[in-house]
Amino acid sequence: MAPRVRTRTSLRAALSTGALVRAAGAHNALGASLVEQAGFEAVWASSFETSAARCLPDASLLTMSEYLEAAAQMQAACSVPVVADVDTGYGGVLNVAHMVREYEAAGITAVAMEDKVFPKMNSFVATEHALLDTAEFQHRLRTAKEVQTGAEFFLIARTEALINGLGTEEALHRCRAYAEAGADAVLVHSKARTPAQIQEFLRGWDRRVPVVIVPTTYPDWSADEAHAAGVSMVIYANQALRANVQSVRQTLRTIYQKGSSTGVEHDIAPVSEIFELQGLAQWMELEA
Amino acid sequence: MAPRVRTRTSLRAALSTGALVRAAGAHNALGASLVEQAGFEAVWASSFETSAARCLPDASLLTMSEYLEAAAQMQAACSVPVVADVDTGYGGVLNVAHMVREYEAAGITAVAMEDKVFPKMNSFVATEHALLDTAEFQHRLRTAKEVQTGAEFFLIARTEALINGLGTEEALHRCRAYAEAGADAVLVHSKARTPAQIQEFLRGWDRRVPVVIVPTTYPDWSADEAHAAGVSMVIYANQALRANVQSVRQTLRTIYQKGSSTGVEHDIAPVSEIFELQGLAQWMELEA
Amino acid sequence: MAPRVRTRTSLRAALSTGALVRAAGAHNALGASLVEQAGFEAVWASSFETSAARCLPDASLLTMSEYLEAAAQMQAACSVPVVADVDTGYGGVLNVAHMVREYEAAGITAVAMEDKVFPKMNSFVATEHALLDTAEFQHRLRTAKEVQTGAEFFLIARTEALINGLGTEEALHRCRAYAEAGADAVLVHSKARTPAQIQEFLRGWDRRVPVVIVPTTYPDWSADEAHAAGVSMVIYANQALRANVQSVRQTLRTIYQKGSSTGVEHDIAPVSEIFELQGLAQWMELEA
Amino acid sequence: MAPRVRTRTSLRAALSTGALVRAAGAHNALGASLVEQAGFEAVWASSFETSAARCLPDASLLTMSEYLEAAAQMQAACSVPVVADVDTGYGGVLNVAHMVREYEAAGITAVAMEDKVFPKMNSFVATEHALLDTAEFQHRLRTAKEVQTGAEFFLIARTEALINGLGTEEALHRCRAYAEAGADAVLVHSKARTPAQIQEFLRGWDRRVPVVIVPTTYPDWSADEAHAAGVSMVIYANQALRANVQSVRQTLRTIYQKGSSTGVEHDIAPVSEIFELQGLAQWMELEA
Repeated sequence: MAPRVRTRTSLRAALSTGALVRAAGAHNALGASLVEQAGFEAVWASSFETSAARCLPDASLLTMSEYLEAAAQMQAACSVPVVADVDTGYGGVLNVAHMVREYEAAGITAVAMEDKVFPKMNSFVATEHALLDTAEFQHRLRTAKEVQTGAEFFLIARTEALINGLGTEEALHRCRAYAEAGADAVLVHSKARTPAQIQEFLRGWDRRVPVVIVPTTYPDWSADEAHAAGVSMVIYANQALRANVQSVRQTLRTIYQKGSSTGVEHDIAPVSEIFELQGLAQWMELEA
Repeated sequence: MAPRVRTRTSLRAALSTGALVRAAGAHNALGASLVEQAGFEAVWASSFETSAARCLPDASLLTMSEYLEAAAQMQAACSVPVVADVDTGYGGVLNVAHMVREYEAAGITAVAMEDKVFPKMNSFVATEHALLDTAEFQHRLRTAKEVQTGAEFFLIARTEALINGLGTEEALHRCRAYAEAGADAVLVHSKARTPAQIQEFLRGWDRRVPVVIVPTTYPDWSADEAHAAGVSMVIYANQALRANVQSVRQTLRTIYQKGSSTGVEHDIAPVSEIFELQGLAQWMELEA
Repeated sequence: MAPRVRTRTSLRAALSTGALVRAAGAHNALGASLVEQAGFEAVWASSFETSAARCLPDASLLTMSEYLEAAAQMQAACSVPVVADVDTGYGGVLNVAHMVREYEAAGITAVAMEDKVFPKMNSFVATEHALLDTAEFQHRLRTAKEVQTGAEFFLIARTEALINGLGTEEALHRCRAYAEAGADAVLVHSKARTPAQIQEFLRGWDRRVPVVIVPTTYPDWSADEAHAAGVSMVIYANQALRANVQSVRQTLRTIYQKGSSTGVEHDIAPVSEIFELQGLAQWMELEA
Repeated sequence: MAPRVRTRTSLRAALSTGALVRAAGAHNALGASLVEQAGFEAVWASSFETSAARCLPDASLLTMSEYLEAAAQMQAACSVPVVADVDTGYGGVLNVAHMVREYEAAGITAVAMEDKVFPKMNSFVATEHALLDTAEFQHRLRTAKEVQTGAEFFLIARTEALINGLGTEEALHRCRAYAEAGADAVLVHSKARTPAQIQEFLRGWDRRVPVVIVPTTYPDWSADEAHAAGVSMVIYANQALRANVQSVRQTLRTIYQKGSSTGVEHDIAPVSEIFELQGLAQWMELEA
């Protein structure tokens, strides 16, 4: 039978076992499918990747409609859960309520929302990253949980306190407040070159809800080490996109310079592998 | 200033110089941008790539709306022309008229339409590939040219006669008829392992309109050789996607197996390169 | 709380009671909401209305993406089931499979598919209306039921045999074959000025699955009379759109001619009524 | 030939003659077409109507993607210009730049942007309506004009100073600043029951750029009177929607209560009129 599947495991279920959940970033169904096939337990529907796929900065320029469409297409192709990066929730508290309804209706059961002001700028850009008041973000989290209709829906509250330079105490203070407001997990983001900040955070955390990290700038801290230190979920947010750019650029340059694709044939997937990712054989059976 | 640009060169203008036009396939703005940056004179908005990005076979499953959105997003990010692969024109003659209007309205000035019956199956799939009557396809081409509103709009008529096994004579017969009906160029597709069929076609062609080829299965025939034999445009249709799949799969496997992204950092583009593709610096200037 | 609701009643459940189900046509969430508020048990997401809303003929010009988006938006605003008019299923058997998956994923649990050839023309247009072979349409119905994932999904098979002039025997023959192939109900369409054809059909029908009618051209036959004769569901397919056109045209003319809207204020809904349809009060509460 | 047309007159051209421009609100291509057929010189792509069509409040819940799609579909069906209501510009200054590019690429040549903070609430709702600083809104206007690529693109700056209760002096101060920043016209919105405020504004206005009004709450002031007082453009923003709701509601109630559509047939447009709005005859000719 054919390749479109529904989530068999929700993020809530995956985290409830206590095992580490590893996610990797994607921006379309094909990327999501490769994430699942590589063994990851979840797909990160990355705003950075999705906006890069449009040649636009990760600065709240694409709309909720566009991010949601991408996330829903990823989920349609996977049986692991898609965790949608919903940035700041796309505006004020009513936008957050609308977002939850639209995402749930489209089959997304996990989202991560951050405490920055809309419109936001990507966390790795050297600029000011203004945060919402804690109480205001709590109001948004409470509202999101209030309008949720399915029991599986999972809300990750992401703090940008460390990105903003506010320190571990503020990150802990905010994460406690977010858990109190109903967040199902917290994501503490850091752009430090070592995991020291995150480790300090974890020592201060009461483990009330699971902790999620994104070790883009401190890749040497392994998933196992993070898990042992109290992390429940690790997101490899953008490496797939960066591999894509590197290889496509190199392949196109070679073809252009050589005037033929002969020189690249051995370094790229055969057409048959694309057919397989398209589920061609199963679709052909349907036709018979 | 910022990175969204409009076509500066149309395909019509590019072909009118007599220089060879080289195109490479893409399925989103990022891929299109990489095609342009590698030096190609045009982007091929490939149905095979676009459907693969959704994990669906290239079998008329995605709708015109979805293909058009992808093509328009590619064009928005490029200053070279996007040539949209419009398959069979999405139905009957009225669908063809509607397609031309919608594509022109969205800023696409070049399309390639093939003489297969809707719904089609990808040409490399080993199955029957039923062709339309020559007269019926001529009617569609005439209609497309009749509803065209912009002078730059360029219609490539693609014959699948060789894919269908009908031989060079039938391909020549059809391409002559298509040029007569108003096609601005012809694309003769072949899945032979050598260029012999195409070379035979070119010897019989009266050069009434330009000839386009897609040397996926006969990559050893170089662009220069093809140009010398009478080809005006060469499309490298899917190599970028295949590079993408190979590298993303490998990168994800390594991260998953090692439990860290450390081992891939040297083989993938740095985040700064993604920022550049997003036009981040120009957008930041706008904000100042 | 806020106005977005999920289906509380499926069409399957509504028909299982034996009570007559009445549906009326709509093309957007607002129209669907008015249908529900008037008391109807279902909304007909009409292709005729949806294409008219775009100033395009009902001739398979809009894509499945566009029809699906309209239907999903209607369902998001209603607690009665939306029955999506999916025309011919948008191509061949693979398109039908894809359609069922996409519609189910978007929350649509009832569709009506007709036995005409793609691309189709609206049944009230005086032109040829070619039908599929019965066996081929059966294959499509079986495929639709095979890929269905939710138990509530309900497939209405619509025959255009009477529209095509083939007579009641052929309509009965086809509807029996369609029920055998798994259709959950049959819709027998007629453009006769009286219900005689439909009555003849009903006398010959074995009531294996429910019968649906669309009494556009024979409005004098009341819902109660139809129900007594064996009809399970009546669709008032396009009257709301026609009321809309008549009143909007008249209102705009008056404003234009008088140079002011004073003269129409008493004949149009107050702004407060629009606020109510938007669920404004409930949204304002969320904000508080 | 067929009914899809391109703008023949831009708003810039229409206003340059000195004649009064009258616009009426719509939310889809059908409504826009009825506006044009009634004689209006422009279509107002209303956010209030577009969000009402989705049963959502006019509170920045629909995304730019959704508003743009609606506006582009209206423009595709009309030869008069569509003036897109772009609310606050959908976020910050980068969102404004992105908006201008996207709207121009989709064929929209006139937009009206207001000086409220994102997310906004509809001006007729009794709530606080926070305004941007004048300098900040000027920055957005300058940016919009800077990224504009077509000479026809026309930017209307709308002040909500009167809606916010700030008085005529502030409205004048803001409108002068907006004209200085490059706005092509100013829209001064009022929800007073008489035109006194607007008349006071007009007496103070230096006529540097044209003035646009929306006389929803003071309908007795005729277009001719407004023109004589210095108004260049009058928008009848939502009367068509309100006519639509009134008539559809009444028609559906009658059908439901009578159990038949017989009683409404004389009050609704015939199917043939819908065919005409769909351009059916022209499409049939294309097929021949």
